[in-house]
Amino acid sequence: MRILILGGDGYLGWPTAMRFSAHGHEVSIVDNFSRRRWHTENSTDSLTPILSLDERIAAWREVSGKEIRTFTGSMEDAAFLDGVIDETLPETIVHYAEQPSAPYSMRSRDAAVETQFTNVIGTLNLLFAIRDKVPDCHLVKLGTMGEYGTPNIDIEEGFIEIEHKGRKDVLPYPKLPGSLYHLSKVHDSHNIHFACRIWGLRATDLNQGVVYGVETDESTADDRLVTRFDYDQYFGTVLNRFCVQAVIGHPLTVYGEGGQTRGFLNIRDTLQCVELAVTNPADLGEFRVFNQFTEQFSVAELADLVRRSAAEVGISAEIKNVPNPRVEAESHYYNAVNTKLRDLGLEPHYLGEELVHSVLGVVQRYRDRVIEDAILPTTQWKAGELVAEPARR
Amino acid sequence: MRILILGGDGYLGWPTAMRFSAHGHEVSIVDNFSRRRWHTENSTDSLTPILSLDERIAAWREVSGKEIRTFTGSMEDAAFLDGVIDETLPETIVHYAEQPSAPYSMRSRDAAVETQFTNVIGTLNLLFAIRDKVPDCHLVKLGTMGEYGTPNIDIEEGFIEIEHKGRKDVLPYPKLPGSLYHLSKVHDSHNIHFACRIWGLRATDLNQGVVYGVETDESTADDRLVTRFDYDQYFGTVLNRFCVQAVIGHPLTVYGEGGQTRGFLNIRDTLQCVELAVTNPADLGEFRVFNQFTEQFSVAELADLVRRSAAEVGISAEIKNVPNPRVEAESHYYNAVNTKLRDLGLEPHYLGEELVHSVLGVVQRYRDRVIEDAILPTTQWKAGELVAEPARR
Repeated sequence: MRILILGGDGYLGWPTAMRFSAHGHEVSIVDNFSRRRWHTENSTDSLTPILSLDERIAAWREVSGKEIRTFTGSMEDAAFLDGVIDETLPETIVHYAEQPSAPYSMRSRDAAVETQFTNVIGTLNLLFAIRDKVPDCHLVKLGTMGEYGTPNIDIEEGFIEIEHKGRKDVLPYPKLPGSLYHLSKVHDSHNIHFACRIWGLRATDLNQGVVYGVETDESTADDRLVTRFDYDQYFGTVLNRFCVQAVIGHPLTVYGEGGQTRGFLNIRDTLQCVELAVTNPADLGEFRVFNQFTEQFSVAELADLVRRSAAEVGISAEIKNVPNPRVEAESHYYNAVNTKLRDLGLEPHYLGEELVHSVLGVVQRYRDRVIEDAILPTTQWKAGELVAEPARR
Repeated sequence: MRILILGGDGYLGWPTAMRFSAHGHEVSIVDNFSRRRWHTENSTDSLTPILSLDERIAAWREVSGKEIRTFTGSMEDAAFLDGVIDETLPETIVHYAEQPSAPYSMRSRDAAVETQFTNVIGTLNLLFAIRDKVPDCHLVKLGTMGEYGTPNIDIEEGFIEIEHKGRKDVLPYPKLPGSLYHLSKVHDSHNIHFACRIWGLRATDLNQGVVYGVETDESTADDRLVTRFDYDQYFGTVLNRFCVQAVIGHPLTVYGEGGQTRGFLNIRDTLQCVELAVTNPADLGEFRVFNQFTEQFSVAELADLVRRSAAEVGISAEIKNVPNPRVEAESHYYNAVNTKLRDLGLEPHYLGEELVHSVLGVVQRYRDRVIEDAILPTTQWKAGELVAEPARR
């Protein structure tokens, strides 16, 4: 199958590209390297030393004997995007090419505008390109569980049957996103749903939980194939950050009371889910939404898991509650449905001490690359980025 | 009160500015004249001969003795917008400054991107300006009933209580917008709701129906104060268009079966509703949604009303069903709640033959300005603007 991976240089994009290439598909990558640029601008970096995309592609060729094509450019550039579609004629597009950080989107007006422009206009350009050039192509778009927020009712997969004043309809699930980044994903979802309803396109929206871990079957074959691993305030996810804090002897900083509950999944399961969506495509005109996570945890539970797991390998970590920079409920109902991917065959890698040990091992290996100043939050949901930075520790 | 009218040169913006000025408020207008530019690009124009904004302001000064300040620029330009807010320190902002046409948004990718960029990024810039400079300011934003689409349950005002698996919550009403323009308004609604939830701003979202009519108390005082009246395929609304077609001897063109039912209101009631929202502001942190229409009609009913009313003044009009350029249900359930503005004191001007006669009179007066070629649709929802134009009549 001809598969185009948008954002194929990223944390999930690169492992996804290798996975499909390994399985015999004809893979092309689009990236504009904005994730690398944002890190440069913030004086942060991936914990793992990642190669340039060209070097990655060469290493992959050497290891697997497979070829991956690359295209450098932005989805906001319609002419560039059209050219890529013309040249690759994809049967499936996996779309990761968005600004993916909630705190980044909240740091300033410029960052908020950049986030909504990049994500919404990029995706809108893509929908027109698909409509006009490859209308049968299946779009697999990464959304986020954060689109739903924390409603007081169970979270369904994209749609909900509502009975109201004696009548019924199945309608898009109401959204209460928690950041301007999450809002951009809500906007995308509405635009893509429209393209399926009106133009007859086919799309799967993967509302993903928080991803943890770094190793995949393909990346472990050669050090040069490792994917990025972020732990900074903008692009780090919580479990990865806790593991870094444990290794460097920093308290595990829980925002507020830590009762915030979310869906989580292993990076290996991200690849499984995307592969299941791709090999079981949506019908023409269908807009499917899958909730892509395997387990729910509160932040306090995760901190405790990391503390216990670290202790077993001789690392003593304490947990510290810090003022929450976000505006969010710290104690709330949370129960999200996630049966559709299970029904397609997803076999979860559940989170346990073994996984934490393996992440701790990666962090220990690259311990000297940790940039401590990048970890604690300076962006407040209420007012953006603070001029003065908070005290360390 | 210091009131800033964004889009104050437009069909509704200009009458709104005069109304608040007449009632003793300190009114400022922002406009970038994009509506005039779009008409120039399409070789279309307002049926009514409108003056330049400066001439309008001068005429208003002469007629009323009141001053209105003007600022020329775009809301997408954050620095410009900040300067206006600094200089005017508004207590209320009425926001009409958006690309307001569904067919325009569907004509091409460029037009779709322009629509979502102008509307979403402009409003996002505004939310930051309010947060950082005038956080107590009440934002009155024009939304549209078209955000809801045509669900099979009653349409509530912005929020709906959902009972699901034994639990309850009040959540944003699910949206099924029918064009990329309507989607931009849905995106705005989500962004504004967020700004109220997270930053504690106050906003009223007026989900307006289709507006008809041209005369308001202030505009009738002097010919130079008339507002624009559009009947073309992009910016014309259906009742205004039918009146033009009746006067020029063109069949009243009903899209498809004409069973499409929508909410409608008189331009005089738009002014009443906006004034009610402004003088009864939302609380800090509150995001209110009012459904702003007074009556529901199907397109076929409106065509019949215009035919009958025209006959009474000696104009014989026939009705012609033409292929629907839009993708929309032509026969559907529709029942929308609109009690909040009534509860605040709205006294509707209902639609009847008298109103149609007055619109027919305006059209007859400016009969020689009608551009016939601009009326019939060339933009198809499925594929954008057609290269070949459809046959006239």
